[in-house]
Amino acid sequence: MRVHIPVQLRWSDLDAYGHVNNVQVLRLLEEVRVVAFWQADDETERDGMPQTAVIDARLGSSTLSIIARTEIEYLKTIEYRRRPLDVQVWVGRLGGADLDVCYEIWSPAGTEPAELYARAVTTVAMVDATTMLPRRLRSEEREAWSPYIEETIRFKRRGA
Amino acid sequence: MRVHIPVQLRWSDLDAYGHVNNVQVLRLLEEVRVVAFWQADDETERDGMPQTAVIDARLGSSTLSIIARTEIEYLKTIEYRRRPLDVQVWVGRLGGADLDVCYEIWSPAGTEPAELYARAVTTVAMVDATTMLPRRLRSEEREAWSPYIEETIRFKRRGA
Amino acid sequence: MRVHIPVQLRWSDLDAYGHVNNVQVLRLLEEVRVVAFWQADDETERDGMPQTAVIDARLGSSTLSIIARTEIEYLKTIEYRRRPLDVQVWVGRLGGADLDVCYEIWSPAGTEPAELYARAVTTVAMVDATTMLPRRLRSEEREAWSPYIEETIRFKRRGA
Amino acid sequence: MRVHIPVQLRWSDLDAYGHVNNVQVLRLLEEVRVVAFWQADDETERDGMPQTAVIDARLGSSTLSIIARTEIEYLKTIEYRRRPLDVQVWVGRLGGADLDVCYEIWSPAGTEPAELYARAVTTVAMVDATTMLPRRLRSEEREAWSPYIEETIRFKRRGA
Repeated sequence: MRVHIPVQLRWSDLDAYGHVNNVQVLRLLEEVRVVAFWQADDETERDGMPQTAVIDARLGSSTLSIIARTEIEYLKTIEYRRRPLDVQVWVGRLGGADLDVCYEIWSPAGTEPAELYARAVTTVAMVDATTMLPRRLRSEEREAWSPYIEETIRFKRRGA
Repeated sequence: MRVHIPVQLRWSDLDAYGHVNNVQVLRLLEEVRVVAFWQADDETERDGMPQTAVIDARLGSSTLSIIARTEIEYLKTIEYRRRPLDVQVWVGRLGGADLDVCYEIWSPAGTEPAELYARAVTTVAMVDATTMLPRRLRSEEREAWSPYIEETIRFKRRGA
Repeated sequence: MRVHIPVQLRWSDLDAYGHVNNVQVLRLLEEVRVVAFWQADDETERDGMPQTAVIDARLGSSTLSIIARTEIEYLKTIEYRRRPLDVQVWVGRLGGADLDVCYEIWSPAGTEPAELYARAVTTVAMVDATTMLPRRLRSEEREAWSPYIEETIRFKRRGA
Repeated sequence: MRVHIPVQLRWSDLDAYGHVNNVQVLRLLEEVRVVAFWQADDETERDGMPQTAVIDARLGSSTLSIIARTEIEYLKTIEYRRRPLDVQVWVGRLGGADLDVCYEIWSPAGTEPAELYARAVTTVAMVDATTMLPRRLRSEEREAWSPYIEETIRFKRRGA
């Protein structure tokens, strides 16, 4: 199951070419992860966000999730716009101590025809906050994340 | 009349101290200006935003608006939260060739008691895009902005 | 006495107008403060930086320095360039529990004629890291910072 | 042949975890590309940078270089430090209309033992600035870039 996260651009996401900067696209995906995977202190029932929009397993403060790897393919330049982009996010793989988060960045919901701007995968590793060593995914994490597993992204452009 | 612009934080607005970075607060105000003063290409009737929320005089491509001055007073540190901050914005002064935009950054709408985090003024100067020289405010600009004039901010901490 | 800190631009400091973004100018001044006021872990004798270039009083981990106020006047747009800008920094005022840091941002050292791009003041307050309450400047801090006291900046454009 | 580009961190590259943010690492690589591949207006003989440190083919204003793809593997967290990181950059592949730029981010030159923090590849495509269509690499570009061709990066962690 894919989760749809609306992502609001900022004008400062543009670079001197007048488009959303390619590094800044990864900044947007960071924010998507924060929204989809973390519950913030000030949220009661995710502020009306459907529970299905929450890929959330409450890591707890004893765990850090760190980014081990990122791959992204840019398909179209993104212009500044007020309406939020439609970012679709799902789990492409549940590993022993890490998972792959997959993303597709689409034009704002309702745009016809919808345009795909970029797709990406980040590998997120679980690390024990005390020892800073990798730790295995817990069964309750696997259970929480299982509904969001879909086929991972097959990138078109890839070298050796 | 003050305009209320909801501003969504990003986790990346935090710095190594774990609070919204003081420079990043000005980044938020930049976005407020863009939302309040500019109409974006993809907006039809500002997407349901009440017309009173638009301090907009359609500058046209022959005019650049540039920031000549900024003053900001930080009253409280801002923590990361999901619910958007309530930024109130108005015009503190209409000059010959520039205007003062005033801001107050408040806790999310509905928070009790409401907290004031920061207040700021930016001076925005009109510049002719061809000659890059300052140009006077036009009568239609004065007319468009007049309803939003309120008393300017009196800063508490100010040196000589 | 003024301290000269060379500041390297990044291309990402530019915004969609192709100039160094006005908020990003304050980002540069943040870095100037870090270089001038803090000694980093990996520095031995500040890596050949003359000791006079260090406005440093070793705050220690029991103190947080927080920004209470910023004022900046933009005089000229800054273009991207490889050679570092010459930022001059000094102490404009030593208060009871805070100090004013003054900055002038100049074209790269050696440019003829030198151009002044912006001037700014930030008020930095000392806060006890445990109680989060303001604390008074210590005598050794006053002593360390005294050589850098010069007249504060008189801003030209200022409202009420 | 690899080119060594020293990259200065900024304190603002840290995120709320107190380490250099993973997205910001790609920001650093953007700057490396700008330094290695572009000659800035204010540089005379690259300001003492050895000519061998310039992977530069003078694209001219009729060409845009756009990022089509990025892959990065993070090996160690990067702490803030004053001394510049040693980023090594080379060409991993010259394609018909694009090239792969390879990077390794190392601890500051002279650190013993040297530490490898991350490695990355970005695919840069040449686009005609007027038609916005891909265009083939020119023979003078191939010639300029050939000395910098080395074996591309073999990533360890890679899914399907």
